[in-house]
Amino acid sequence: MTQAMNGAESLVRTLVAGGVEVCFTNPGTSEMHFVAALDKVPGMRSSLCLFEGGATGAADGYFRMARKPASTLLHLGPGLANGIANLHNAKKARSGIVNIVGEHATYHLALDAPLTADIEGLARPVSHWVKTSLSSAEVGQDGSEAIVAARTAPGQIATLILPGDTAWETGGNVANVAPMPELPGIDSAQVDRVAQALRRSENAIILVGNAGLDPETFNRIAQIAQATDCALMTDWANARVDRGAGRISAPRIPFNVDLAIEALRGFDTIILIGARKPVAFFAYPGKPGEFAGPGTTFIELAGTAEDIPAAVDALLDATGAATTTPKLIAQSFGPEIPVGPLDPDAIGAVIGATLPEGAIVVDESVTTGRGFFPVTSGAPPHTWLYNCGGSIGFCLPVATGAAMACPDRKVVALTGDGSAMYTLQSLWTMARENLDVTIMVFANQSYHILTGELTNVGVKNPGPRAADMLSLRRPDLGWVRMSKGLGVDAVRVETTEELARAFRAGLSENGPYLIEVVL
Amino acid sequence: MTQAMNGAESLVRTLVAGGVEVCFTNPGTSEMHFVAALDKVPGMRSSLCLFEGGATGAADGYFRMARKPASTLLHLGPGLANGIANLHNAKKARSGIVNIVGEHATYHLALDAPLTADIEGLARPVSHWVKTSLSSAEVGQDGSEAIVAARTAPGQIATLILPGDTAWETGGNVANVAPMPELPGIDSAQVDRVAQALRRSENAIILVGNAGLDPETFNRIAQIAQATDCALMTDWANARVDRGAGRISAPRIPFNVDLAIEALRGFDTIILIGARKPVAFFAYPGKPGEFAGPGTTFIELAGTAEDIPAAVDALLDATGAATTTPKLIAQSFGPEIPVGPLDPDAIGAVIGATLPEGAIVVDESVTTGRGFFPVTSGAPPHTWLYNCGGSIGFCLPVATGAAMACPDRKVVALTGDGSAMYTLQSLWTMARENLDVTIMVFANQSYHILTGELTNVGVKNPGPRAADMLSLRRPDLGWVRMSKGLGVDAVRVETTEELARAFRAGLSENGPYLIEVVL
Repeated sequence: MTQAMNGAESLVRTLVAGGVEVCFTNPGTSEMHFVAALDKVPGMRSSLCLFEGGATGAADGYFRMARKPASTLLHLGPGLANGIANLHNAKKARSGIVNIVGEHATYHLALDAPLTADIEGLARPVSHWVKTSLSSAEVGQDGSEAIVAARTAPGQIATLILPGDTAWETGGNVANVAPMPELPGIDSAQVDRVAQALRRSENAIILVGNAGLDPETFNRIAQIAQATDCALMTDWANARVDRGAGRISAPRIPFNVDLAIEALRGFDTIILIGARKPVAFFAYPGKPGEFAGPGTTFIELAGTAEDIPAAVDALLDATGAATTTPKLIAQSFGPEIPVGPLDPDAIGAVIGATLPEGAIVVDESVTTGRGFFPVTSGAPPHTWLYNCGGSIGFCLPVATGAAMACPDRKVVALTGDGSAMYTLQSLWTMARENLDVTIMVFANQSYHILTGELTNVGVKNPGPRAADMLSLRRPDLGWVRMSKGLGVDAVRVETTEELARAFRAGLSENGPYLIEVVL
Repeated sequence: MTQAMNGAESLVRTLVAGGVEVCFTNPGTSEMHFVAALDKVPGMRSSLCLFEGGATGAADGYFRMARKPASTLLHLGPGLANGIANLHNAKKARSGIVNIVGEHATYHLALDAPLTADIEGLARPVSHWVKTSLSSAEVGQDGSEAIVAARTAPGQIATLILPGDTAWETGGNVANVAPMPELPGIDSAQVDRVAQALRRSENAIILVGNAGLDPETFNRIAQIAQATDCALMTDWANARVDRGAGRISAPRIPFNVDLAIEALRGFDTIILIGARKPVAFFAYPGKPGEFAGPGTTFIELAGTAEDIPAAVDALLDATGAATTTPKLIAQSFGPEIPVGPLDPDAIGAVIGATLPEGAIVVDESVTTGRGFFPVTSGAPPHTWLYNCGGSIGFCLPVATGAAMACPDRKVVALTGDGSAMYTLQSLWTMARENLDVTIMVFANQSYHILTGELTNVGVKNPGPRAADMLSLRRPDLGWVRMSKGLGVDAVRVETTEELARAFRAGLSENGPYLIEVVL
């Protein structure tokens, strides 16, 4: 720590000291001192993204696997704006991220130069914590506060705005990161109420959200469910599930409103563990927004900001479930692989039969992949990452970050073609970093989900213009060409046999490989 | 207008009746009724974009050429967010746009479903006008207010948020669009002050912004400059300049701070016509943010929200310049085309010699294109669109919208490779609509501007990690493959002769054509 250290360098040193060791960057002029500091400070791996949604989504994927925040480096308001959609997803997944957003020098703002924008205003809707640094002397401290914010359980979006002069002026101070505050102690009375409800009810179900899904905690929850003879289900969209053979298998609440209502029918009591009352993704005319019937009793054991493992331990004792052996799923490889043309079931069979141990599946397979989760329930142990915010363009960026976090594991990215088009630039970052990702793009050449949604919202007989707004034909997208243009080897498959062969080829690569799956 | 009409249909009918006849769409579930209404209402041309920045940028380009607003259709908060960067550029260019952003049904918001976000909060920093419709009965009226807002001189961003139930419920009413309010009358005393200043000063310059650049007004401004023997210059970034042989030619204020200060040195008086005090794009350590010296007198004839043509007419009279014949630039085709390897000068020579009459140039050529503007000053009459907001990823979307507005004119899109990567999805829309756009991508495989900016902000001897954050190599981007994958025919050129041939080939196409210009 010397007087000659500028604010940018103090920030990079503070981040590294605070355990933030990866930065996904898309810099511009106002971020040049931060970029220059990357060479002075060992320990910060920086990875260039060609679109900011690639950077923010990668930070999300990194947090889910590393269980600690990465940073992003974004260029003023518009750079942040391009990253907002995947920050929205990360916020809903409760991933921790430290965004560093460059800003004009403090004294330059009054001149209203072309790139001037209300950065704080753009940041607030997708951030739990927003601050603009005021001087180089304070940048380090501000950075340490951002790290604490990002690490606050279960994870938060922290956005630190860094005016140019606070980056380039000297007087920077490296700050220590304060220890994380203890989580509030568990509420024993609430644990007893839940235990009582489980004993009393003949038709209870435990609904588990992401914060209760780490394998140890989820194992104990399964013991409780088994000992009290109640059902077990998880949210539809879980940030991360470690699953497969030898682990707990639980169904997800269906996406479809009618199926979800059916799935929850008959339960008089729903115990929430890190989950929220289950609601519909969208409202549909004449259908309810809440899945549970009006007479259902909800009891929350603990929320996402509480100490869920401790609360589950207490409930394990209170229900006498500690000695129950949880039922683990046996290894199985899904249905037999059919031959011939591709359809969602055939693709699911290939994935179920082939998914390797340790794989990290990033699932944005939308309509094609509705059945992939059940057919892989007995596959070798693996991890499943799902989109919790519903903003598409999630898969390729999140796969990038997951692969950066876990270089020894294979990432399998499953994405619809419409979804992949929003953030295809991530393929280039995968190529540059030689990330071990096998990608399937499900090329049904349409926003297929919307053809169903048209019907769901009550539109009968859509005309040609409406149909045109849901079609990705005219021209067909050429995924092999696009992928190779971005530096990722690719192949196109039209039959189940070809897919099975291509998937094995991708898995045997030590780098990115894309399969265009023609539907 | 029947009771059976739903809110979405009333909105589409109101838009068409109000002269908003194009919609750039990227819809989702919450926008399905709007999409369905497109089939019921004749007169709304809808064009699908595969990324929302393509939609908002296209609306910007459309406004600049059609001089009336287009609409966009965006999917909730994240869909709007993906369009913000190009809305920022459109706002700075003062383009008028009507954004329709779908939202959850009003009663669904309280459930905090995954896609729930603060849409108004995201919209405000890039909108002049924001409103959320509350019922289907009000949607038409809200739409008409949005149109008035978008058309308010010189142009505004209007964002109308459309909850699902207000779209699908019946009771919609088509609304008339109120006549535009009259602009405030001109300030005669101010006109006299400007005339006096021009007579008194030996070293005055008239600085013209976009609102003074329509050919008739700019002609008169040139008469005034000539009659009063004062200099004439425009902003660096003009939304639209109609220029070329037989028109007024004026230099732009340079982008580079030192050059800009030099260009304005010696002028004691600066007359602003629809322009602002010239300022640096960024602050740089030790350099001023304002280009004009401290003793300079600024006098504004009229601002962008005033009646600039009327004020210029009054000044023409007050300066006795009405009989002055303005000096028009003669036809010329720039320097001789060299042979051999490509460099910015050689590319400029090819463009200068070949640009066809009526071309619309969309310029995001960044470092490669600094010299393109002067070498085309005597080219056949054409139009030049420039990025006024500094957020890159501007060119391909704006070219899309300009081509939609002017199907009989050739669009020439000039873009850096780094810039084009943000919004390359627009190529697909160009292919789908068979838009007549010839694209040059300047493939220097780097964020070349930033290597200069590193030096400009005082970073000496950048290390390998910093250099890596500015390089688009590892792997090289394959523009021909990417473009063909998106449905646009493409060719790669490495010499000036090849470029000249490819440019002529592109111009002779009646559809999109991409040239990868290797530097």
